[in-house]
Amino acid sequence: MNYKILIAYDGTKYNGWQIQRSSQNTIQGKISDVLTKLAGVQTDVIGSGRTDAGVHALAQCANFVMPDRFDNEIFIMDYLNKYLPEDISVLSIEKADSKFHARFSAVSKTYRYRIHTSNIKDVFQRKYVYTYLDKKLNVNLMRQAAEKLIGTYDFKAFCGNPHFKKSSVRTITSIDIKESEFEISIDFTGDGFLQNMVRILTGTLIEVGNGNIKPSQISEIINSKDRQLAGFTAPACGLALVKVEY
Amino acid sequence: MNYKILIAYDGTKYNGWQIQRSSQNTIQGKISDVLTKLAGVQTDVIGSGRTDAGVHALAQCANFVMPDRFDNEIFIMDYLNKYLPEDISVLSIEKADSKFHARFSAVSKTYRYRIHTSNIKDVFQRKYVYTYLDKKLNVNLMRQAAEKLIGTYDFKAFCGNPHFKKSSVRTITSIDIKESEFEISIDFTGDGFLQNMVRILTGTLIEVGNGNIKPSQISEIINSKDRQLAGFTAPACGLALVKVEY
Repeated sequence: MNYKILIAYDGTKYNGWQIQRSSQNTIQGKISDVLTKLAGVQTDVIGSGRTDAGVHALAQCANFVMPDRFDNEIFIMDYLNKYLPEDISVLSIEKADSKFHARFSAVSKTYRYRIHTSNIKDVFQRKYVYTYLDKKLNVNLMRQAAEKLIGTYDFKAFCGNPHFKKSSVRTITSIDIKESEFEISIDFTGDGFLQNMVRILTGTLIEVGNGNIKPSQISEIINSKDRQLAGFTAPACGLALVKVEY
Repeated sequence: MNYKILIAYDGTKYNGWQIQRSSQNTIQGKISDVLTKLAGVQTDVIGSGRTDAGVHALAQCANFVMPDRFDNEIFIMDYLNKYLPEDISVLSIEKADSKFHARFSAVSKTYRYRIHTSNIKDVFQRKYVYTYLDKKLNVNLMRQAAEKLIGTYDFKAFCGNPHFKKSSVRTITSIDIKESEFEISIDFTGDGFLQNMVRILTGTLIEVGNGNIKPSQISEIINSKDRQLAGFTAPACGLALVKVEY
């Protein structure tokens, strides 16, 4: 039976979602370990996509196949929540069609980047925001720049992996920037994102907000396909995967 | 010049507010160290009261006296926020009357205890709530018991320090219990609280909620002055000082 789950995690102490040869300290690895223990056979978990080391998720989506004798999804979810570490939580579970694949079936993803803009730290949110105090950010300019990023483009200039060989064409459908007294949050929705892409998009928007880059330069940066022309890579801690649509 | 500050802290890794001979890892100690460095002379900080090891504050109040040449309160606040650890934050500062004393001038305090009632952990709030899954809590019974705790009583039965020699008479002016899907939060307001008192009051209300103690037994427990008859001491992590009134 194929199961679909939604997972929240505090990514602070993990080397990202994806199991790697060099490190076992991944969210995917932790979930796979618990399921393997339950099922008695190696059970792999497919995520909607990777999140970088230190990046969080409010609702990552994943699927896995369990032997047929496990037909009680609430039992599986309770077992996961009992044995997963305190910074990983399964929010929901449902039986899925055997064709459902968390990565290939995904239609769009939304990531949220949170920028804390006050020198009064929020001690309870400090691990989930990026504190930026350098210069006051002009949110109107950031919104103008965001407009230029919406659409289908080759986002190679915003890819953190210089050796990436596959197509770097992606579609961004919306960038929603919200401002409150001490925080600017940016929701990026698209069909998929390249490695570090949301963090580089955020760094670029921050550099627009502080005057380093003009909104009118965005199209030029996209067209250049040159990572050097885009902004800095904003820190992982401010980023969270918030929704995957199927 | 006497300054009044409001401070937020994540108490997870501290041995409480108060400087102790045995441990320097206290919030009061951290603030005093930074002010002493700034002033060039030993500068003590007076808090509205102690918080236990692991207890948080949304707005602890404190005061301290600085040499007269420090007359710019924003400078002092920025200096504190720059040099305090990431889990302690100064929210506001103001010049206070020389007679203002954070402890003696306090008229009332409000503490909030947060009980997480779902086996779906909230990974982002996990250090600020107590996860209670034992039995479903009956909030109506808890509210009936809370009613019986309001008033001026000798709360010796709810004091965690068996060697406490001073008066254990305190006045509780309100206990406000809020219930949402996955959380029960209890706000306690009173003129002051004994050591561990809010945590023992919470443990007692939880035991009322799960049927161990009847609301009608509360007056008996108060009158007994016997710590053994009150409920367990709820864990520190769920507790936060939220407001001090002057």
